[in-house]
Amino acid sequence: MPRYKLTLEYDGSAFVGWQRQTNGLSVQQAIEEAAQRYCGVLPVAHAAGRTDSGVHALGQVAHIDLERGDPAEKVRDAINAHLRPLPVAVRQAERVDDDFHARFSALERSYVYRILCRRAHPVLEHGKVWWVARPLNAEAMHEAGQILVGNHDFTSFRATECQSRSPVKTLDLLTVTHTPVPEGSLIEIFVRARSFLHHQVRNMVGTLSLVGTGKWTGRDVRKALEARSRSSAGPTAPACGLYFLEVRYPTKEADYHNNNSVFSPL
Amino acid sequence: MPRYKLTLEYDGSAFVGWQRQTNGLSVQQAIEEAAQRYCGVLPVAHAAGRTDSGVHALGQVAHIDLERGDPAEKVRDAINAHLRPLPVAVRQAERVDDDFHARFSALERSYVYRILCRRAHPVLEHGKVWWVARPLNAEAMHEAGQILVGNHDFTSFRATECQSRSPVKTLDLLTVTHTPVPEGSLIEIFVRARSFLHHQVRNMVGTLSLVGTGKWTGRDVRKALEARSRSSAGPTAPACGLYFLEVRYPTKEADYHNNNSVFSPL
Repeated sequence: MPRYKLTLEYDGSAFVGWQRQTNGLSVQQAIEEAAQRYCGVLPVAHAAGRTDSGVHALGQVAHIDLERGDPAEKVRDAINAHLRPLPVAVRQAERVDDDFHARFSALERSYVYRILCRRAHPVLEHGKVWWVARPLNAEAMHEAGQILVGNHDFTSFRATECQSRSPVKTLDLLTVTHTPVPEGSLIEIFVRARSFLHHQVRNMVGTLSLVGTGKWTGRDVRKALEARSRSSAGPTAPACGLYFLEVRYPTKEADYHNNNSVFSPL
Repeated sequence: MPRYKLTLEYDGSAFVGWQRQTNGLSVQQAIEEAAQRYCGVLPVAHAAGRTDSGVHALGQVAHIDLERGDPAEKVRDAINAHLRPLPVAVRQAERVDDDFHARFSALERSYVYRILCRRAHPVLEHGKVWWVARPLNAEAMHEAGQILVGNHDFTSFRATECQSRSPVKTLDLLTVTHTPVPEGSLIEIFVRARSFLHHQVRNMVGTLSLVGTGKWTGRDVRKALEARSRSSAGPTAPACGLYFLEVRYPTKEADYHNNNSVFSPL
């Protein structure tokens, strides 16, 4: 059956997360049922990452196999027609080879976490940012964040229910930027890695927020990382500020180079 | 009683518009009742402009008189505490003189209208943009929009229920910009004038969208303007794309100059 790669955008506040659950509508169920209404058969959608309830996506990637071999643009438009008015859409659809797997072929995942710092509560960004009613020092957060970049045991930043076999991951990038907004600022934390532990991004952000308020220094972040215990690090930042940004896959030309770098991560 | 100038942000989709109505919650009612819960007395809030249902605000301005002469920051925080979790917030509060009037002292009002052009429906921007599933030519819209700048009889762009005494207004600025977004573009139309007729911005945008698709030229816009009949111009663009951006008032230093320019608009 023809396989399609779907690039998805969704508003996490409307769903119980990516994965099918019994307690509400998941993004996976929405996509699968929209594809069923279009093709007549219920496919299984596999995603690059299982986002939690409340977490948004700008560029989640999933793949599905469809009975019909329609052109990719038709698949995109047909699934979108059946998704509306749910806040999830197929930005892009692409015919891919049978060996493409949204999760297992992924080389790199990127997230952005958005914090709105101002006295007034978020209005137009309600549910789309973490609201912190005081200023945060983005430069200090960025500097302390560099301690987390590299190959580390991230046990201190891992949810207790995390099912990953190993707590050792390589964080390739962590950048903290700030943009002035009226009466405050928008802080954005970009992170990139081959893969992340459960809640790793939100736990890193919660920890860096302590640096932003001046309560912690880089030294404290290093101590938390080295402690290898969840209780040593900062709180879990709320889901509503987190966005699954994009996934990188091997390109035809770069297949060898990329696969090579994946299997020897340092 | 001490008078306060409030700069307001709101998500128009949650309200029946600025003005009190019997059919639902208005922004005015939300502000007045929050102030009442804070001060014990129900004040009257006067706004710079009465936005329609669904129209958003980034910088609407209102004034209220409060029994208590608290510092402006306390007024802002107290009203916000009583507004939450409604999607309306006081960005800024300021003590002003008794002769300040949010509506009658205003020298200039600005709006921005946002159009998302892409195949996939809006998700994170749902209800915050006008969705047009095809590309629009922003340059052509900008060029044709310049025909509307200046002192004109805007009857063709005025809602039939508009209560303004005269259809003659001076449009000081109309700028159309476009920003690339994944698989599409975000078109923003900025407008500035001393005041606008009812639905004027949405009717101008709806008309310029015909230029954007190539159906109309600048010549057609000029003919529509000169016809002085609503049916000659384009459709009314939806409320959800419109944002009340800001209001300019005389500054102490510039009082004379600004008032002067207002009373001799050409």
